[in-house]
Amino acid sequence: MQFYVDGFRGGDPDIRNAAPCRRNRGHHAPLPEKVDVLIAGCGPAGLCLAAQLSQFPEIETMIVERKPGPIEKGQADGINTRTMEMFQAFGFGEQVKREGYWVNQTTFWSPDPKNPERIQRIGRVQDVPEDSSEMPHTLINQARVHELFLDVMRNSPSRLEPDYSWSVRDVSIDNSTDDYPVTVTLENTGINAGETKTVQANYVVGCDGARSNVRTAIGGQLHGDAAHQAWGVMDILANTDFPDVRQKCLVASSSEGNILILPREGGYLFRMYVELDKLNPDERVSSRNFTEADMIAAANRIMKPYTIDVKQVVWWSIYEIGHRLTDRFDDVPAGEDRNPRVFTAGDACHTHSPKAGQGMNVSMQDTFNLGWKLVHVLQGRSDASLLRSYSAERWAEAKRLIDKDHEWSRIMSAPPGKSELDGGHMPRFQKQFIENLEFTGGLAVKYGPSALTAASSHQALATGEEIGRRFHSAPVVRVADAMRMQLGHVAEADSRWRIYAFTGAKDGSAPGSAIHRLADWLETDPSSPVVKYTRQGEDIDAVIDLRAVFQQHFDELAYEDMPSLLKPSKGRLGLQDHEKVFCVDHKGLGDIYDMRGIDREHGCMIVVRPDQYVANVLPLDAFTELSEFFAVFLVPAG
Amino acid sequence: MQFYVDGFRGGDPDIRNAAPCRRNRGHHAPLPEKVDVLIAGCGPAGLCLAAQLSQFPEIETMIVERKPGPIEKGQADGINTRTMEMFQAFGFGEQVKREGYWVNQTTFWSPDPKNPERIQRIGRVQDVPEDSSEMPHTLINQARVHELFLDVMRNSPSRLEPDYSWSVRDVSIDNSTDDYPVTVTLENTGINAGETKTVQANYVVGCDGARSNVRTAIGGQLHGDAAHQAWGVMDILANTDFPDVRQKCLVASSSEGNILILPREGGYLFRMYVELDKLNPDERVSSRNFTEADMIAAANRIMKPYTIDVKQVVWWSIYEIGHRLTDRFDDVPAGEDRNPRVFTAGDACHTHSPKAGQGMNVSMQDTFNLGWKLVHVLQGRSDASLLRSYSAERWAEAKRLIDKDHEWSRIMSAPPGKSELDGGHMPRFQKQFIENLEFTGGLAVKYGPSALTAASSHQALATGEEIGRRFHSAPVVRVADAMRMQLGHVAEADSRWRIYAFTGAKDGSAPGSAIHRLADWLETDPSSPVVKYTRQGEDIDAVIDLRAVFQQHFDELAYEDMPSLLKPSKGRLGLQDHEKVFCVDHKGLGDIYDMRGIDREHGCMIVVRPDQYVANVLPLDAFTELSEFFAVFLVPAG
Ligand SMILES: Cc1cc2nc3c(=O)[nH]c(=O)nc-3n(C[C@H](O)[C@H](O)[C@H](O)COP(=O)(O)OP(=O)(O)OC[C@H]3O[C@@H](n4cnc5c(N)ncnc54)[C@H](O)[C@@H]3O)c2cc1C
Ligand SMILES: Cc1cc2nc3c(=O)[nH]c(=O)nc-3n(C[C@H](O)[C@H](O)[C@H](O)COP(=O)(O)OP(=O)(O)OC[C@H]3O[C@@H](n4cnc5c(N)ncnc54)[C@H](O)[C@@H]3O)c2cc1C
Repeated sequence: MQFYVDGFRGGDPDIRNAAPCRRNRGHHAPLPEKVDVLIAGCGPAGLCLAAQLSQFPEIETMIVERKPGPIEKGQADGINTRTMEMFQAFGFGEQVKREGYWVNQTTFWSPDPKNPERIQRIGRVQDVPEDSSEMPHTLINQARVHELFLDVMRNSPSRLEPDYSWSVRDVSIDNSTDDYPVTVTLENTGINAGETKTVQANYVVGCDGARSNVRTAIGGQLHGDAAHQAWGVMDILANTDFPDVRQKCLVASSSEGNILILPREGGYLFRMYVELDKLNPDERVSSRNFTEADMIAAANRIMKPYTIDVKQVVWWSIYEIGHRLTDRFDDVPAGEDRNPRVFTAGDACHTHSPKAGQGMNVSMQDTFNLGWKLVHVLQGRSDASLLRSYSAERWAEAKRLIDKDHEWSRIMSAPPGKSELDGGHMPRFQKQFIENLEFTGGLAVKYGPSALTAASSHQALATGEEIGRRFHSAPVVRVADAMRMQLGHVAEADSRWRIYAFTGAKDGSAPGSAIHRLADWLETDPSSPVVKYTRQGEDIDAVIDLRAVFQQHFDELAYEDMPSLLKPSKGRLGLQDHEKVFCVDHKGLGDIYDMRGIDREHGCMIVVRPDQYVANVLPLDAFTELSEFFAVFLVPAG
Repeated sequence: MQFYVDGFRGGDPDIRNAAPCRRNRGHHAPLPEKVDVLIAGCGPAGLCLAAQLSQFPEIETMIVERKPGPIEKGQADGINTRTMEMFQAFGFGEQVKREGYWVNQTTFWSPDPKNPERIQRIGRVQDVPEDSSEMPHTLINQARVHELFLDVMRNSPSRLEPDYSWSVRDVSIDNSTDDYPVTVTLENTGINAGETKTVQANYVVGCDGARSNVRTAIGGQLHGDAAHQAWGVMDILANTDFPDVRQKCLVASSSEGNILILPREGGYLFRMYVELDKLNPDERVSSRNFTEADMIAAANRIMKPYTIDVKQVVWWSIYEIGHRLTDRFDDVPAGEDRNPRVFTAGDACHTHSPKAGQGMNVSMQDTFNLGWKLVHVLQGRSDASLLRSYSAERWAEAKRLIDKDHEWSRIMSAPPGKSELDGGHMPRFQKQFIENLEFTGGLAVKYGPSALTAASSHQALATGEEIGRRFHSAPVVRVADAMRMQLGHVAEADSRWRIYAFTGAKDGSAPGSAIHRLADWLETDPSSPVVKYTRQGEDIDAVIDLRAVFQQHFDELAYEDMPSLLKPSKGRLGLQDHEKVFCVDHKGLGDIYDMRGIDREHGCMIVVRPDQYVANVLPLDAFTELSEFFAVFLVPAG
């Protein structure tokens, strides 16, 4: 964690210095008339976007929420490993690791063949496969996740806060202008209920959930299941003689239905999902008068011979959801050739069954994809056409997810067949579960070849860092202070690109080595992307952040010989940054070259997008290819 | 981290529910007339004590500070591994790990024999030896440590805050009464400067630094060096071509003196200590007119051929300190037989050279020793004679430390001799440094046999957990949720005793096993300390917290068969606690039985004090000895 680059300041280093230009949030200050980005909705999608934009006080961001304040409990609770990696970039990964429940094992229970009235444990699976991620799979109250994002916003230079009690009623776009072309009509839902107000925006992002007004305004429609599924869900404080209550469990009874148990933060709380009957297209579950008492009774029937003695129902809901998807995630109809102005993200454009625990995760990944693109365009670093890639990339992912969701639901909701009751082979849903772990971890996402993710012509140089997939972290040692750490954790949610240069076998720190040639070219050559895209007065790593990884032990390297781009002077005081040079962790958790299939002989460069996806893998001397890669979507600094 | 045991509540789980009985801290609320404990001084010693006491809202604690508010920078910065272990118990160990600088390596620089005008690196030492502690040695601004303790206080049930701008002028004790016998005269140093106020207290703790008024009031005097040492110290933001600027360095020049470099939090800041001449007994360094510019110039002379280009001096000071010690740390004169009422801690009773980085650490360890004893006595769990052990235990440690300090200073301040310039053998100060690592880590502390630390008759059952030394953590897996973690991290700064029961080779979870016999006896036998000392209505682990460690893999154990004391019902709702049962971490960092020399055949119990020191090692069936151990200092519940 780096701070004090612009001079010392006491206190919590997560609180960044406030920008003088930030919006006046005094009690009677009016709403702004014009903003760069208006975000509708303070769910995971909206907050994840706002937290990114809030780091850039020159971008005027407004986030409105229909409710009068933040939620306290309920809704989703699963944070997959991919999302935890992203939380790390926002600075609160450690906090969730400390507070949250870690899903280490998942266990499977089925009817005992000798006595089908009773369930028995039939299997146990390690939930996060070895080295699939350096982060755990956790469970924590969605409201707490909101709060952690709100903290990031509050601590940011723009001190961003949501405008509560304002609902987006309508959105219209004037495609004839580039000057705040989107008009947003807000309606007060609080003390001045009904009052309306219009705000002009350059971009609008609808993170307003499954009943999104923004989606409707741009003519989007959710397509999907005819029949939707209803789930009874309750977060409870309860005692039980069921021995696996502190493990994630999938429980199938012979005739009473299925239950999913999710232990939660704090050591006592847990969640139970009880699968209810399918609903007809027009039916609402409320018509069935299902209550919390029914749910507790059902749970006790399913869990026999075990009993659950509920002491407090913290939250419960009947959660009805279909697997649905819109045709596009922006306002540009198919066939029309213009840049988008309005986007939808999260539940506003795709909804999921809670069973695979994806809803909240995918929503945040949507806006983690969109955030840096908006920043690039609003800072003038990229042409607005960059924004077209958002819908393209995320729609394909959402589609894949919905298809998986369907498959999963089909397999899971069929009653356990006779075949799986003999312990001889792995039961169907355990097998399915294991096969899906990479997918449910959020680690299977792969963006296809495009301007932002190269065709994989040099993939062989880093077989474990697949182009289009997220950069897979591994342990390294930081040379300047011999710090053992995760290489991936140098990436912050700061919209910067990263180049990890892995040196070849004989490449040391001596001048003339391949790493010197690369760093020196990047620092000085007119065709270098660092030279071309970094503006006067900016830190040399403001757009592209070079890091090097050596194969030697840290004390075999001469730090004094490192190229100057790897210890650049930064900030107001021009202070040297000593955190750019790494080496293999010889005595630690593994060798990053082996773990990620990096070519030891030649080394390579891995270009990583601001959202942590691998954009390109190149030889260390592929200067031209590197120039060309960035030239497609970055605009030279004036 | 456990929470929600009394029911769900949203928000940051570190913020505990406020106690209704807490002091009114409104703007015009008067100071209290009577308090249980009055702490003088908001340095590390005072805050570490206040943070402990604040967890017990029934104990009225007041902490006064002469200054108008918290410090922002300067003073000490070294947090040794032992203190980090203690921070973990306070809940902010992870935060310091994230924010602070980690001292991984220490390097040594000496004059180049071929060119003594130039320094060269002569050695490098891993700063924290393997498995000496699970925590790192860190460096962080003392003000930030204060803030983290202040957060603990603010988030506690009593919402404790310091009373700033009040100085303790005098303390007097009426030994004829037990009813608030100490009268404290406070003097306002703020807006009403000079105004005085008296407060009656049951106990007073002088954490008021080297010029302590409390010490003076109880007739204490610091004895020690005739000549004191002066150090120039500066925290700077600076650039340098010195390659080890991000490592802790001891630099000795041939004729310009010595420097100690300490990299600091945030990646840019570092500290330099420049050793100045010895002062005469009555001399103050101010008489020598030494300035920050002199210090920078001296540093540049010492560091040749390297240069230091200072961009910002964040803080600097000439820090004069002798190695000094009082005769006792409480108000009871030698030979007098009564219980103490007034204590001193930290710099108020012993002062150290900054070179070994002990001042702040030892000060906090003093009050970590005193805190739980005050809680026990004020809660009526122990007789007041328990408080005599504070001075006895901590004085011996302070004495040992001062002796070491002397030895270290002698070795370090002698100019480098010819002998150590040939690289053939390890230089004198590197050798000395390595030999002292356990000591400087704060890990060599050992309390002698007493009522609180048994004679070591069963030490052979756990050779790596020496009685009188701190409980040395090791990795385990929590059975209920397969969580890999450090066993030592179950201990919180909550004044509770812990018994870690390590099972023997054949001992499983089946009823009738040794662990069942122990747990059942502890839960039900009239002579069991759990039965004797736990009060009606309290959680069964309120005084003594039993945890078990098994040798099997977590999935070979039947959690349902565990004795009820290992899954007790707790809190307002009577919820089961599932975090008491552990097993060996087979695929992790090591086997705790091997790492700590636990007898595999027979197992054992390790009794650990609230301040994390090993109090006793006993066979699993030593019921009588266990009873007798606690009977010496605990009072049966009414
Ligand atoms: C009641 C409920 C229960 C759920 N239970 C589960 C569960 O058990 N398991 C699970 O996995 N997932 C559950 N979910 C889904 C999960 O919470 C979502 O997948 C996830 O929150 C999606 O994030 P989002 O940001 O896209 O949308 P949301 O979290 O739905 O956030 C949308 C936000 O926009 C606000 N909003 C709506 N319209 C407007 C408007 N016009 N103007 C301004 N603000 C507006 C809403 O108040 C809301 O705060 C539940 C959702 C709800 C609503
Ligand atoms: C200026 C300064 C520089 C230092 N520099 C270093 C260094 O470079 N390296 C190093 O290792 N250590 C240094 N130290 C020492 C280190 O800070 C101490 O060892 C450590 O803080 C001891 O903690 P303490 O709580 O015992 O005392 P202190 O931290 O000294 O705290 C005592 C507190 O009590 C307050 N106080 C004093 N008298 C009264 C009174 N009558 N009533 C109420 N409050 C009172 C003081 O204002 C102070 O806040 C320095 C100390 C000082 C004061």
